[in-house]
Amino acid sequence: MNNVQQLINANKNRLYFAQYNENPKAYPESAQSEGLLAFQTKLNSNYNFLINDTSSDFYGEEVSPYMLTGLGIHYPKLNANDLIEKSSVAFNQWRNIEIDTKYTILTQSLENVSKRFFELAYSTMHTTGQSFLMSFQASGPHACDRALEVLAAGYEQLNYYPKQIDWTKNLGKFDLTIHKNYKPIPKGISLVIGCSTFPTWNTVPGLYASLITGNTVIVKPHPKSVYPIAIFIEELRKVLAEYNINPDVVSMAIDSIENPITKILAEHSSVKVIDYTGGSTFGSYIESLGKVCFTEKAGINSILIDSVNDADKIFQNIAFSISLYSGQMCTAPQNIYISKDGIQTSNGHLSFDECVTGIHNALSNLLGNPKAAAPTLGAIQNQFTIDRINNKMNEMNNNSKLIEVDLEVVNDEFKDARIALPKLLVINADSTQAYMEECFGPLSFIIKTNSYEDSLSFMKSSGEEHGAITCLAYTTNEAKMKEIEDQMNSVFVPVSFNFTGAAFVNQHAAFSDLHVSGGNPSGNATFTNAEFINKRYIWIGNRYLL
Amino acid sequence: MNNVQQLINANKNRLYFAQYNENPKAYPESAQSEGLLAFQTKLNSNYNFLINDTSSDFYGEEVSPYMLTGLGIHYPKLNANDLIEKSSVAFNQWRNIEIDTKYTILTQSLENVSKRFFELAYSTMHTTGQSFLMSFQASGPHACDRALEVLAAGYEQLNYYPKQIDWTKNLGKFDLTIHKNYKPIPKGISLVIGCSTFPTWNTVPGLYASLITGNTVIVKPHPKSVYPIAIFIEELRKVLAEYNINPDVVSMAIDSIENPITKILAEHSSVKVIDYTGGSTFGSYIESLGKVCFTEKAGINSILIDSVNDADKIFQNIAFSISLYSGQMCTAPQNIYISKDGIQTSNGHLSFDECVTGIHNALSNLLGNPKAAAPTLGAIQNQFTIDRINNKMNEMNNNSKLIEVDLEVVNDEFKDARIALPKLLVINADSTQAYMEECFGPLSFIIKTNSYEDSLSFMKSSGEEHGAITCLAYTTNEAKMKEIEDQMNSVFVPVSFNFTGAAFVNQHAAFSDLHVSGGNPSGNATFTNAEFINKRYIWIGNRYLL
Repeated sequence: MNNVQQLINANKNRLYFAQYNENPKAYPESAQSEGLLAFQTKLNSNYNFLINDTSSDFYGEEVSPYMLTGLGIHYPKLNANDLIEKSSVAFNQWRNIEIDTKYTILTQSLENVSKRFFELAYSTMHTTGQSFLMSFQASGPHACDRALEVLAAGYEQLNYYPKQIDWTKNLGKFDLTIHKNYKPIPKGISLVIGCSTFPTWNTVPGLYASLITGNTVIVKPHPKSVYPIAIFIEELRKVLAEYNINPDVVSMAIDSIENPITKILAEHSSVKVIDYTGGSTFGSYIESLGKVCFTEKAGINSILIDSVNDADKIFQNIAFSISLYSGQMCTAPQNIYISKDGIQTSNGHLSFDECVTGIHNALSNLLGNPKAAAPTLGAIQNQFTIDRINNKMNEMNNNSKLIEVDLEVVNDEFKDARIALPKLLVINADSTQAYMEECFGPLSFIIKTNSYEDSLSFMKSSGEEHGAITCLAYTTNEAKMKEIEDQMNSVFVPVSFNFTGAAFVNQHAAFSDLHVSGGNPSGNATFTNAEFINKRYIWIGNRYLL
Repeated sequence: MNNVQQLINANKNRLYFAQYNENPKAYPESAQSEGLLAFQTKLNSNYNFLINDTSSDFYGEEVSPYMLTGLGIHYPKLNANDLIEKSSVAFNQWRNIEIDTKYTILTQSLENVSKRFFELAYSTMHTTGQSFLMSFQASGPHACDRALEVLAAGYEQLNYYPKQIDWTKNLGKFDLTIHKNYKPIPKGISLVIGCSTFPTWNTVPGLYASLITGNTVIVKPHPKSVYPIAIFIEELRKVLAEYNINPDVVSMAIDSIENPITKILAEHSSVKVIDYTGGSTFGSYIESLGKVCFTEKAGINSILIDSVNDADKIFQNIAFSISLYSGQMCTAPQNIYISKDGIQTSNGHLSFDECVTGIHNALSNLLGNPKAAAPTLGAIQNQFTIDRINNKMNEMNNNSKLIEVDLEVVNDEFKDARIALPKLLVINADSTQAYMEECFGPLSFIIKTNSYEDSLSFMKSSGEEHGAITCLAYTTNEAKMKEIEDQMNSVFVPVSFNFTGAAFVNQHAAFSDLHVSGGNPSGNATFTNAEFINKRYIWIGNRYLL
């Protein structure tokens, strides 16, 4: 288990590698009820499980998007200076710990977290609004797999150069021999800034990448989504203490929406590395600090439909992708480009309007299925997402047509769940000001273009100028596939082709999918390439004359 | 020859790997006179050897530091827009050339350059002022080895991911199989800005790194040092043409001291990657552009003397290091820290003043040896270097003591050579404003500190605040070695220990020494780590449902 070479090979070969089972049914029968109990026990109390933490101040403001009540969990709260000081002290120990020991500690922490996947699922549900299944998978096994991917890449990169060599150069009459050593020197304190919708999946890659490379980490979770990542931090600190290492190697910065401390930490001279997931404005501020940083910001993901075999299958696939977690995934598609001339299918031609109807019908069918609707949509994490979309709708003039599903979706378990059904706006391609910005949440556009070429051109410029984490193209024409791949790749946007069935553009797997390219405005980094590791330390070569 | 795996292994193992022999005597007897003739033939004429170049405008302003006369060579000159446009056209071809073909073309160009090592030596002598031997070694074999190191790292990194895989995930009742490909997508046009003192050694790593990763390159040499790098560009374009590839994959931007075009090129939106060697002010401007950039700027390299076996040997070593090419190497030591209590040697104690006398004597002996003096010093590339040092001397108040060598060094071959003997200023450590800045050229400081601890503290803060490419420490105490390495490495400065004899701190070998750490103000990059390659392209993974 966790064999280093196996991990490294998986990372290199990009074949499917799932260390942690994503199926809740694969776990012991009692695990779910125990997880629920653990979650319930934490409510309305102080989270005092961080070993060696002596905080006297506690704070929390999480609200369940399913119950619309506060969780009442208060987390130990330190001010920025104390966090930095404690992290600096821990750094002087951690930087000198052998890489193999680091690796053992970090993989052990994931093993320990895996015993709490169900608690992690409930804590994620009730902070992010994700469905139970997505909460389980994304925050648990998938996040742990992404952490393992980072550890594999880290282990490999840190062993890239030999520890030492004796270098000999013949100078004619004699040999010059110099002993040389090579050391990856960590940068210092690392700040990892979490987001409200994916509090562990988006946080653990930076967290584990900084740790394996010898940096200490201050995690600054979103004040509305602390609990899930607190579980990782708790388990990390426990294992560190078991190894007689100062647990402040990992600490947690608690703040409030009212009084954020992120900028104080980010601007502190001792903070050398920053990982960030969130909105573009703050992300660009982080990038402007001139520090080593890894950002995932906003983007607009597009779909282009040119020609398909079975139109119904692709409409179903699209309906699911835009409904999944109500468009709150960073990989959710927003803009669907279709030529005014419609599309070709194996069963003949479909007009533009028929495509619109097809997507509308697929959406109605999905959301009209009581077993599928609520678990697909989840809940809206923040009321502000709904308000923003409503404001957007009010701004729209009558050159667009609103398509809604005339249904009410109810979550039987949580009657108060903050649910919003996806809206579709059908719009002409020339109304760029409406759709050429990220509309986070349950709003998508079906955009009528003049032609396939036009669709590709819009999708390309959108990716180049506004960023895109991914895009999806439907074409049965091989030349067009090649063209789409070439054009979108040239602006550093990856393409998924002809996804139907169980393949969804929203999903990025560890050990196989690079998440965010780092080459367009949606972010400057990738989970997980060599750079995601290497920028966190400096290789130094010292020389001793022998 | 140039076996890829052999190169990759050499790069990883950091053992000595010299593809190109650094000994001029190892080459055919006629090579030197042929090289001299080739050089002489180029003087006072248009350099019209760039294949497929149709320039009608020619310009040059190189001056030999040995003859103090202009070389009269005029190079084809294009304006910035034409350079960008030609490079953009070539990019669309080059980015799609297979990596193996790129590798073959690029290694072939080095082979072709190696046939012109002597012409390269003379062109380097008469632009930089380096001695013949240094010109030969640095611009020829050593530069080619650094280029090969880049090609090895490039080949390895570009093959890090498989080209494609079929990824299968079991979903209970069925398997989901997705075809995934992985492509390193080049960023675009790369600008490589050369310096006047090492016009090829410092330029070819960025040049070949951008080329192997699929970017096209505009080389902007220093207007006073064009000829050496023009030879590389000429040979590159020739091989490209042989492979029916647009030679504008590599082009040369010629400007003048009066009307530089570097900023126009650097700020152009099509230029995505910049390599820069030169002064810190311009280097920081390059970094501020927010583009991918690799800089080598100014730093202050230090020597700390604590305890030694044979004091005379280390004084000789220091005298040579500060004299070599008159302190115009970026790796030349400038500040020598010695405690007021002197140093321990195997033959007893030496006072501070005795150390000063020892270094002075070693310098007098070196420069008093007619066979050694002129070849060690070379010539001063630019009169401005001498003027700046003279200005500095005028500013010095009487809290420092000037130590000079009372000799006249004459270059028998070139009576007009711009020669300046190294000056040593003995100064108290508290006069930081005098020595805590880079004094490029033949000026060094012997700094009297209160103690070993004090010396280390100054050397560390100097590296952290002003940057250092390297440093040299003399101590026989193992605990101090460990401490010096730990403290200097923590501010990302590598240390060389106890160098005597043929080991000189100035020298950084390809395939074994990382040049510049990238972690302190002396520069943000390293020859050659994975990042030096990886930042020039973006990995993109596309997905096809099977």
